Amino acid sequence: MWTNTLKPYDILSEEQVQQIDDHAMLILQEIGVDFLHPRALDHFRRAGLKIEENRVHFDRAVIEEQIKKVPATFPVQARNPKNAIVIGGNHMVNAPVYGPPFITDLDRGRRGATIDDFTNFDKMAQATPQIHCAGGTIVEPEDLPLETRHLDMVYSHIRWTDMPFMGSVISEENARDSIEMASIVFGGREAIEKTPALLALVNVNSPLRYDDRMLGALLEYAAANQPVIATPFLMAGAMSPMGLAGTLAQQTAEALAGITLIQLVRPGAPCIYGSFLTNIDMQSGSPAFGTPESAMGILASAQMARHYKLPFRGGGALTSSKGPDAQAAYESMMCMWPTVLGGVHFVLHAAGWLESALLASYEKFIIDVEALRMFEWILSRGIPFDDEGFAMDGIREVGPGGHHLGSEHTMRHYRTGFYRPWISSTENFDRWQRNGSRTADRVANEKWKQLLKDYADPGIDSGVDAQLQAFIEVRKDAILHARV
Amino acid sequence: MWTNTLKPYDILSEEQVQQIDDHAMLILQEIGVDFLHPRALDHFRRAGLKIEENRVHFDRAVIEEQIKKVPATFPVQARNPKNAIVIGGNHMVNAPVYGPPFITDLDRGRRGATIDDFTNFDKMAQATPQIHCAGGTIVEPEDLPLETRHLDMVYSHIRWTDMPFMGSVISEENARDSIEMASIVFGGREAIEKTPALLALVNVNSPLRYDDRMLGALLEYAAANQPVIATPFLMAGAMSPMGLAGTLAQQTAEALAGITLIQLVRPGAPCIYGSFLTNIDMQSGSPAFGTPESAMGILASAQMARHYKLPFRGGGALTSSKGPDAQAAYESMMCMWPTVLGGVHFVLHAAGWLESALLASYEKFIIDVEALRMFEWILSRGIPFDDEGFAMDGIREVGPGGHHLGSEHTMRHYRTGFYRPWISSTENFDRWQRNGSRTADRVANEKWKQLLKDYADPGIDSGVDAQLQAFIEVRKDAILHARV
Repeated sequence: MWTNTLKPYDILSEEQVQQIDDHAMLILQEIGVDFLHPRALDHFRRAGLKIEENRVHFDRAVIEEQIKKVPATFPVQARNPKNAIVIGGNHMVNAPVYGPPFITDLDRGRRGATIDDFTNFDKMAQATPQIHCAGGTIVEPEDLPLETRHLDMVYSHIRWTDMPFMGSVISEENARDSIEMASIVFGGREAIEKTPALLALVNVNSPLRYDDRMLGALLEYAAANQPVIATPFLMAGAMSPMGLAGTLAQQTAEALAGITLIQLVRPGAPCIYGSFLTNIDMQSGSPAFGTPESAMGILASAQMARHYKLPFRGGGALTSSKGPDAQAAYESMMCMWPTVLGGVHFVLHAAGWLESALLASYEKFIIDVEALRMFEWILSRGIPFDDEGFAMDGIREVGPGGHHLGSEHTMRHYRTGFYRPWISSTENFDRWQRNGSRTADRVANEKWKQLLKDYADPGIDSGVDAQLQAFIEVRKDAILHARV
Repeated sequence: MWTNTLKPYDILSEEQVQQIDDHAMLILQEIGVDFLHPRALDHFRRAGLKIEENRVHFDRAVIEEQIKKVPATFPVQARNPKNAIVIGGNHMVNAPVYGPPFITDLDRGRRGATIDDFTNFDKMAQATPQIHCAGGTIVEPEDLPLETRHLDMVYSHIRWTDMPFMGSVISEENARDSIEMASIVFGGREAIEKTPALLALVNVNSPLRYDDRMLGALLEYAAANQPVIATPFLMAGAMSPMGLAGTLAQQTAEALAGITLIQLVRPGAPCIYGSFLTNIDMQSGSPAFGTPESAMGILASAQMARHYKLPFRGGGALTSSKGPDAQAAYESMMCMWPTVLGGVHFVLHAAGWLESALLASYEKFIIDVEALRMFEWILSRGIPFDDEGFAMDGIREVGPGGHHLGSEHTMRHYRTGFYRPWISSTENFDRWQRNGSRTADRVANEKWKQLLKDYADPGIDSGVDAQLQAFIEVRKDAILHARV
């Protein structure tokens, strides 16, 4: 994972933070949030909150008391201890795209995603130092039965990477399966309760509603002390109003409501204020990613999470573009700068996303990783302020009108002194033309194939693997039997 | 022009600013700067500085005394008073690409630039609200004689735009011609001395050398009270060391040396701390733009200019890519976020640049303008914090589980509530495919043609035009006669 050495950019004044907080509390108290799960309502009832049918009306004191219990930082285990991560503080953890049903590459075009694609992305993530978490539902493997594919996805993460990964959140049962598989890998339920081993992305059915399936998953993960990312799903104009301040207030209300529930389930359980905030393009009626609203939203949301001293998830390389073109790149960068300057702790969709979450792309994965490499350089290298950074010996040696290419200082630093691009071309035009006039998407096409070739299988303990296989077999039988 | 409402991002600590200042002063004192022009040396001699041949050794007291005289903000006239600009403060002024000998578009490919291309860019700039200055040598019109083409370029700016523009800096004579033409347009030399009408980009022949031709231009513009942008030309690893702190110190030394000269020529003359700072890709030996070093360099350079209370030029949509692809976009955005967050006052190369300054592109111009439009939205709209921004009536009306698309609040705001993209596609895949599966460069190709069609000729006073034509004819005769 990275250490984010840049100080966070505060886009909001202190007064504006307070205004958003006040409006969030007003929403929570006056309008309330629906929780479509009896066990969730029980928790709120025991906390003394007012409930009408499924609607919980919060009060500031209860929320503030509960969110104080959230750890500001917490670790997540990895099969390879070197890949263990910490969420929060000045750490930044990147995970690949999450969720698309479709996948594309320049050779085969857009098509339904399969478990092979899923595993390829696991392998590319494993082979990419800038990706720190294998992610969750990287793509929906549509070649596998809906009811059991979560088992194959979790297995793919475990088997083909040795990084932290995310569990299934489709239902209570899927969450239990994920927790069980992590328990097998990490030495039992007690071990993962002690040090979490799974992240879980729980989306709010915005506006102001947590549905029964997601709540089932939330309750399971919270009880098991696994970190839940409580993420309002806000395409402003549809799931929230056409006002960014109101959208931020609603997001805060929804996230704090979920986090309060998590703390009522298990005080001190790790959790994350999540943000997935963009706007509808009112001309096309479709969601638009990488917009000014996204950019401001990431900075403002991250600042709200800092205000509450909560770990934060948001941002990523988001775009509405249908291919790995200039639009995909400028929209992604529209989000990635705020992601880095916002001090986002957990970055889902850091690589490989296209078409407003509907499409994963092999080439876009590579293009995004080049951007991640540049940010990594800024965060890890920064501007060196030691004597070598000031290079007075070089400046003296070269003097006015000279040339630094051959100076002793340059000789000492030319290998590692500056960022070296991975796919970006700096060649002159003639050489670039001789090399085939390749645009970035074509270079990326060659690079992901190379990455898969270079991938090194981390292996797995055969006993653990056998246990996992046996568990999956039993569960698949049970699930498919139940279906009949 | 824009009002930059975002507070500048300080990437340097106060101590680091002091360290760069100290090293800059050390360079200026101990190593010195070459000024290859006798009149420049005379000015320094009269100020009591130590001079050895062409090398001037500065001292802190003289520099600090002189740079204090620079106006923190100053106006620049435009033929249309509505297009007048202010440089400095929280203003941000965008100008197109400057300097490439080649031009490209998707239809005709890469070729030598002509005066027709030059004028087309003038027209596109005029038709684009996000561009506030017509620029200078947008491209080198290689179809015109070298000795006289500056007259045609300045005329093109004057005739086809009514925005501020930049004068020629190739020589003392060219500068005088530019000043003379501006005097014709704005009512005489006295009028433009009172309110400047021309910006002049004076590059340093880095390291630590101002050459005779650029100095000739600098002396003319400074004497006429026209703002000079004193810009060290630093591709670190070649013109400055492979150390970013040292490069920033050298840049500061070079810029302050030029600004000191300007103030010695004419105390209180408007001028700008310029930065054109990137690094060499030591693998290819070529300059690399849109790198981590560029990004950090923009933020740090802008902060140094703030430290000295000097107006600042830097940043832009810079890239080494050979076409308007994903690389062009992510590299440009790597620079544009720091440009905006650095509070850059004058942004040259804000649209149309490719291939490390060698290539202007019609399509890239459009792509860059989409990014500018997004930043404009952030700066002009921000996050509205009034009652409409919080939209509590909408949140109440919709309630948990509802939909905001039809709410009264949305009805009030759907036309102007959120950013509307210009070339970015948010269409769903089927519609995008039916519309021809156009990538951003193809959309941009259609858009620049439309922009040229939509261009409205601002016209010109026939008397002024006749005077300009007569002046140009006389000067061309004289120059070509002198050549014979």
